[in-house]
Amino acid sequence: MASGYKVAVVGSSDAVGNELISILEERDFPVSEFRALEPKGSLGDYVQFHGDDVGIEEMKVDSFRGIEIAFFAAGDAISRQYVPLAVQHGCTVIDNSSHFILDKDVPLVVPEVNAHKIKGHSGIIANPSCTTIQLVVALYPIHKAVRIKRIVVSTYQAISDNGKKAMDELTNQIKDLFNFRDPTVQVYPYQIAFNVLPHIDEFLENAYTTQEMKIANETKKILEDDSIGICATTVRIPVFYGHCASINIESERKISPDETRNILRSTPGVQVLDDPSHNIYPLPIYTAGMDDCFVGRIREDISIRNGLVMWVVSDNIRKGAALNAVQIAEHLIAGNE
Amino acid sequence: MASGYKVAVVGSSDAVGNELISILEERDFPVSEFRALEPKGSLGDYVQFHGDDVGIEEMKVDSFRGIEIAFFAAGDAISRQYVPLAVQHGCTVIDNSSHFILDKDVPLVVPEVNAHKIKGHSGIIANPSCTTIQLVVALYPIHKAVRIKRIVVSTYQAISDNGKKAMDELTNQIKDLFNFRDPTVQVYPYQIAFNVLPHIDEFLENAYTTQEMKIANETKKILEDDSIGICATTVRIPVFYGHCASINIESERKISPDETRNILRSTPGVQVLDDPSHNIYPLPIYTAGMDDCFVGRIREDISIRNGLVMWVVSDNIRKGAALNAVQIAEHLIAGNE
Repeated sequence: MASGYKVAVVGSSDAVGNELISILEERDFPVSEFRALEPKGSLGDYVQFHGDDVGIEEMKVDSFRGIEIAFFAAGDAISRQYVPLAVQHGCTVIDNSSHFILDKDVPLVVPEVNAHKIKGHSGIIANPSCTTIQLVVALYPIHKAVRIKRIVVSTYQAISDNGKKAMDELTNQIKDLFNFRDPTVQVYPYQIAFNVLPHIDEFLENAYTTQEMKIANETKKILEDDSIGICATTVRIPVFYGHCASINIESERKISPDETRNILRSTPGVQVLDDPSHNIYPLPIYTAGMDDCFVGRIREDISIRNGLVMWVVSDNIRKGAALNAVQIAEHLIAGNE
Repeated sequence: MASGYKVAVVGSSDAVGNELISILEERDFPVSEFRALEPKGSLGDYVQFHGDDVGIEEMKVDSFRGIEIAFFAAGDAISRQYVPLAVQHGCTVIDNSSHFILDKDVPLVVPEVNAHKIKGHSGIIANPSCTTIQLVVALYPIHKAVRIKRIVVSTYQAISDNGKKAMDELTNQIKDLFNFRDPTVQVYPYQIAFNVLPHIDEFLENAYTTQEMKIANETKKILEDDSIGICATTVRIPVFYGHCASINIESERKISPDETRNILRSTPGVQVLDDPSHNIYPLPIYTAGMDDCFVGRIREDISIRNGLVMWVVSDNIRKGAALNAVQIAEHLIAGNE
C-alpha cells in the first residue's frame, strides 16, 4: 500500500472516464495497480496511464477483487448493478451516476463544501451532478454568510455530459447542415446544432426533469438545509465543454456584490472573473480544462430586497465530474494516512 | 391612398429589414409606393418587392418627402438622426431601434397587449426589443388574471439580432475551428461558436446590460405597471434564429399550470406547446419563420408560494422585430379607415 492504491475506472473510454484518468495522472494520485473496465469490454482497446498501455477489460462479477478504490462513470444502470458488487469486494466506490445520490447512507460530497462527510461512508461516496457541483461551490460561502432562502437557476449545459456520441452528433449535424443534408438525430430527441433543448434527463410527474430535481435535492443535501427553496430550469445548448448557470438568490440578510466578491475571492475552488467594463466575465470556452468554478456578473437583484444575481461557469467534465471524484478520493486516502 | 400607402424601409439589406419586406408582402400590406433606404446606400443593389426590383437608395435629408409610413431597422444612431427628419416630412415612423423606447411621448407597442396606444402617437411608434415582445405577449394575460409581482428571466438569444455579419461570423468560426484554424472574432468580444456570452449590448453602471434594463423598463411601460419587479440576465448563444427565455414569475394570486395553459390557449399570438411526456416543448429551430410566441414547460415554481415557471420561444426577427412592426402599421392604417 505504501506505493499506492489499487484503482479501477469503470467507463474509461468515454468523456468522464477519460478525464478521470488524466486527472489521476496530473495530480499524481498514488496508484500501485490500475484497471480500466467497461461494461461490455472493448477487446483490443487500450487506455494510456502514466505512459503505459492498459487494456480495457470487460467488467465481470469479480473484476473488483483486490481493488481498493473504484471510480464509476458509466451511467445509472451500470452503477446500480455493479457498485454493490464492488463494495462486497471491500472496494470503496466513488460513483458518478445519480443512482445513490439521495440515499441517506451515501455521502454526497463536494470537497470544498462537505469533505467531512467522506469519513462516514459505508463503501459508496456519490459525486453530485455537474450543475449542482458548480452551484454549491459558489453558493456555500454565501449561504454561510447570509443564509440563502431561495435559489432560481437556469442552466446552459454543454453536450459533453452525454459523452463522445453527443459530441460526434453535434459535429456531424453541423457538417450535414453546412452541406445542405438533413442532419441525423440520435442522442437527443431533436437536432442540437443551432438549437436549444429545455430538456435534460427524463420528465417527472411534476413537469420538472430529473436533472432539475437533482439540482434542488442535491443542493439541499449538500448544504444540509431542507428549508432552501430551489427552482431549476435545465437547458442543453450546442456547446462542447463548460456549463453555465444564471443564478438569482434571495438571502435572509442582504449581501452586496462587493461583499460577495470578497467572500468568493477567498473561497477554495472559485475564481472571480467580474469586470464587465473590460468585458471580463466567465465563458465556457475559456473554462474548459480548468479546475475552478468561475463566477462573474455579480450584481444586486433589482427585483427584490435581499437579492443577488450571478453567472457561474465550470468545466462540466472536470470539476463537474472527474476532478470532483478524484478530489473525493484524495480526501479519502488522506483520512487513511 | 385607396390603393395603398407610400412606404419606406430603412435598413432594408440586413436581417430585420429583409424580413420586414417579406412580411409586408406576405400580409399584403397596401403599398402604393415602396422605397428601400440605406444610411450609406448600396449603389446598384436591389431588393425585391412583390416581384419588382427596387433599387436601394442612399438616405438623404429629403428621402422621406411624400412617404407616409417609414420602418426604421438600422440601429440607434441612424434612428436618432433620421427619425425626426422623417417625422418633419409628415411621415409616421415605426422604429425598431431602442432610441425612443422610454420616451414618454412615444408609444411602445406590442399589438396583442396595447394596440390602443397607437392612436396617441405624435409621429413615432417604438417597436420594443425582441425579448421584451415575446415576454409580454406571454405574460400579459397572466398579469391580467393574477397580477404579476416579480419576473426573473434568463435568456438564450440568437445571433441574427446582430444581422448578417453575425451570422457569417458564426458560420466562419465553425468552419475555421473544424479546419484547425484560429477563428476570427469581430462582431462579438469573444468567439461565439461553441461559446456562451452573458453580455448583450453595453454594460451600465449598475452592472446590468442595456438589454437587461430594456427588458425591465419596456415590460413595465407596456404592462403599464411600475410596481412589477423584473430581473433579467441576457445571454447570447450560438443559434441563428429564435430567442428562448426561461421565466419565473411570482403573482399576487396563485395560478395553476392548467389555468395558465387555458388562458394562453385563447391568447392571440400565443401557441402552447406543452406536453413533456411526448417531448413537446418550444424549440428555436421549429419556431424560426413562425409568427407566434410559443410557450411550454409550464409548471409550478416549487421554490415559492405563488410561483410559476415557463419557457417562451419566438422568432427574434419576426415577432421579435419585423412582424411586430408590420402589425403596428396594420393597426395604424386600420385606425385611418
